[in-house]
Amino acid sequence: MENTTQELTSIFPKGEKGSNDLFTGNAYPTALIDADSIYNTLVGNVYFEPGARSNWHSHPAGQILIITDGIGYHQIEGKPIEIIKKGDVVKCPPNVKHWHGASADVGLQQLYIIPNTDKGIVEWNEAVTAEQYSINNSNK
Amino acid sequence: MENTTQELTSIFPKGEKGSNDLFTGNAYPTALIDADSIYNTLVGNVYFEPGARSNWHSHPAGQILIITDGIGYHQIEGKPIEIIKKGDVVKCPPNVKHWHGASADVGLQQLYIIPNTDKGIVEWNEAVTAEQYSINNSNK
Repeated sequence: MENTTQELTSIFPKGEKGSNDLFTGNAYPTALIDADSIYNTLVGNVYFEPGARSNWHSHPAGQILIITDGIGYHQIEGKPIEIIKKGDVVKCPPNVKHWHGASADVGLQQLYIIPNTDKGIVEWNEAVTAEQYSINNSNK
Repeated sequence: MENTTQELTSIFPKGEKGSNDLFTGNAYPTALIDADSIYNTLVGNVYFEPGARSNWHSHPAGQILIITDGIGYHQIEGKPIEIIKKGDVVKCPPNVKHWHGASADVGLQQLYIIPNTDKGIVEWNEAVTAEQYSINNSNK
């Protein structure tokens, strides 16, 4: 498991470990573009170690994820898991709960884009339980 | 020169060669997210072979570039060249002319984000001349 993690390409700085209140496992979010009134857009990267994932959360104007390396999962509430991997680009609509993170065995490098930040950035919810995550893993 | 090009990481599909009316040299733009009324954001990738660059152009709501591999240049009209390389993130303000492309010796892989597409996407201008490009190269 350690070896597969280390094989991922790191394009951006790793940053500090994200809060246990927002992530399960070891996730490293790094801001790349702060929201402002000109670009109205927030951009960052998250490196998820194998097994790590965000809590459930939503974005008032939605989110675009761009996967630059590794393998992971993205789930929109009420829908099946999507397997996401290097080169994939996925969207989550405004005000819809979702979570994203690494697969159990391989980490994930993912850029996130939050558009239209004048509408808000993120609302955090509960953690993705081991059962929710393991059910997802059984579908891979 | 061929070897340095081939060493770049390709995360996204290479796509078709961009028009000679918009690019000098071999540039390969690929759309990843089309603009729509929900996300209001356009995302894509351009692979520039060594020496390739865009024409001068501007964006009504500005642009964010994310460099995922290689070495290149970004110039905002009236300002010095910026050298851009893997991991860099640069912005160009709304309605300001700029161009971007690869260095003479090493190619460039770059994501672009055009926010607030309800204001428009791009206005194209004249090519970056060999002299403009070679002056820039002499500053590296």
